[in-house]
Amino acid sequence: MPSPHAPLLRALAGDRPEQTPVWFMRQAGRSLPEYRELRVGTRMLDACLTPDLAAEITLQPVRRHGVDAAVFFSDIVIPLRLAGVDVEIEPGRGPVFADPVRTRADVDRITAIDPEALDTTAIAEAVRIVTAELGDTPLIGFAGAPFTLAAYLVEGGPSKEHLRARAMMHTDPDAWNRLAGWLSRVSRRFLEAQRDAGAATVQLFDSWAGSLNPADYRTHVAPHSKAAVTGLDVPVIHFGVGTGPFLADMRLDGVASAVGVDWRQPLDEAAGILGDGVTVQGNIDPAMLQAPWEVLEAHVRDVIARGRSARAHILNLGHGVPPETDPDQLTRIVELAHS
Amino acid sequence: MPSPHAPLLRALAGDRPEQTPVWFMRQAGRSLPEYRELRVGTRMLDACLTPDLAAEITLQPVRRHGVDAAVFFSDIVIPLRLAGVDVEIEPGRGPVFADPVRTRADVDRITAIDPEALDTTAIAEAVRIVTAELGDTPLIGFAGAPFTLAAYLVEGGPSKEHLRARAMMHTDPDAWNRLAGWLSRVSRRFLEAQRDAGAATVQLFDSWAGSLNPADYRTHVAPHSKAAVTGLDVPVIHFGVGTGPFLADMRLDGVASAVGVDWRQPLDEAAGILGDGVTVQGNIDPAMLQAPWEVLEAHVRDVIARGRSARAHILNLGHGVPPETDPDQLTRIVELAHS
Repeated sequence: MPSPHAPLLRALAGDRPEQTPVWFMRQAGRSLPEYRELRVGTRMLDACLTPDLAAEITLQPVRRHGVDAAVFFSDIVIPLRLAGVDVEIEPGRGPVFADPVRTRADVDRITAIDPEALDTTAIAEAVRIVTAELGDTPLIGFAGAPFTLAAYLVEGGPSKEHLRARAMMHTDPDAWNRLAGWLSRVSRRFLEAQRDAGAATVQLFDSWAGSLNPADYRTHVAPHSKAAVTGLDVPVIHFGVGTGPFLADMRLDGVASAVGVDWRQPLDEAAGILGDGVTVQGNIDPAMLQAPWEVLEAHVRDVIARGRSARAHILNLGHGVPPETDPDQLTRIVELAHS
Repeated sequence: MPSPHAPLLRALAGDRPEQTPVWFMRQAGRSLPEYRELRVGTRMLDACLTPDLAAEITLQPVRRHGVDAAVFFSDIVIPLRLAGVDVEIEPGRGPVFADPVRTRADVDRITAIDPEALDTTAIAEAVRIVTAELGDTPLIGFAGAPFTLAAYLVEGGPSKEHLRARAMMHTDPDAWNRLAGWLSRVSRRFLEAQRDAGAATVQLFDSWAGSLNPADYRTHVAPHSKAAVTGLDVPVIHFGVGTGPFLADMRLDGVASAVGVDWRQPLDEAAGILGDGVTVQGNIDPAMLQAPWEVLEAHVRDVIARGRSARAHILNLGHGVPPETDPDQLTRIVELAHS
């Protein structure tokens, strides 16, 4: 059982623990040699659905870095795979769907699947293994936001500016709302499974929301993200990249306990926009992980100093750990945050 | 000779012609069947360096759409190719460099090349063919901004968040400044060749500037972009994607006559930030090109209405024409702007 006194949970509740809690998005993954070794011969989505393996990968960065939280090792398309959607992760490319969802008929077809019928046994089992070993350290549940999922699903794979998903909002708002509403329920089901098995908090990842203008975000996206996490009974962290122009909307009308800020916006400025009702998370520039420690250290100290203007601060990167990162840099950041 | 009364040039001078001038970034390219036909069997950079071909491709969208300007068909890496750098465009991927420029020694090696020694004969010849046919219609010269070029060159190819180039700014600011300064001179040389052969204005493309935080943009990037276009004696359009957080800096201290705005920011809001000293260009959402004409038309009318709050407005997309665009949608936009 994670302690309610765990620094991460205190910070999410708006409290300021003695030491700034720290974890890293994509801390479980390719930057760790022990991860690369474990993953040999196993495809990404298969690894996510093998409880022992997913649990071990989730735990690796906690053991190595001493971070304040584990984040469940998974992929945002896992609940779609569990829903029977034909999706694979192509190495070096990303999620690729055999049947893109572009037309009204495509939307009818996919939304006919009942999100409640998803078999989340493998997820629950992995989470139980993780939380049993973690003890006081909280596990963060993981899911993709409806827009980011749609950005892949409508296009059929990765794209730069997510034109097809963004076009659907205007071309056929009804089809868009049905699709995004369904994706919202699918991601919610995924989060509930993690919560029920012991995740103490969850993070909703809207990695591609930054391709939207504020009006589209507000009208066509935020309501679906909010529905995915409202009433989950655990604190919610909401993260997007390039969301500066509509940062206040990322609070999801108070449903989010913390908002993740990318590296583009100084954290004190972001805190000023977000106000006193929410904790900030971020926002070390991932590029700085390549710099010598003295340069990175100065940057991290600056981020921590700026974070003091928020009600509470969870130290993290402004986006995921790049695969080529020297993991020792991450360990040093944790030591600095805890010193 | 382009007439100084050409609507584009009047708008750049801060005047409001009767009809909103309109052109499209990447109007010469894959959205046109006549382009795809011409390009069969010719590699991208070879096409750019074959004067007849580059000129014909530049002229195609002017003939088809009746836009208010041609934009020189080229690639931002062309001046690097002319400098003897080993670069190729991989279809579906982008520019790939045989030797990435990552170390101090790499920077020494590449900056030893004299930008003044670039043989721009093929560029000048293509521009002369184009301007002879264009008559009153102005040709916009084309070049990449130093940061966007560096984003490719330091990484060795396309990347999502341009970590290596952004890291170099902090890890070795001296090497960064030498590299960006050299790229600035290379792009300037490319623009001068186009101007000398008849381009009436130029646009500097900083497509990846949006990956920077405002402080990095101001300190490590803007001075080099400014140096590339200061004192060119033709109006300068400066364009970037995702540059909302530092839009005012895109004016380059008054050197830019117009600033391009991407689709994320309402044009009236952008005009408010940019002030009365500069013309705005943009910002039709490329995703809307996929929508039925009634939906696209309403969007274009909204963009034109918002553009009225600027001193002058050049209608354009918020980024380049996507390859899958139905070219008739572009023609309709021109007709609407001219109606």
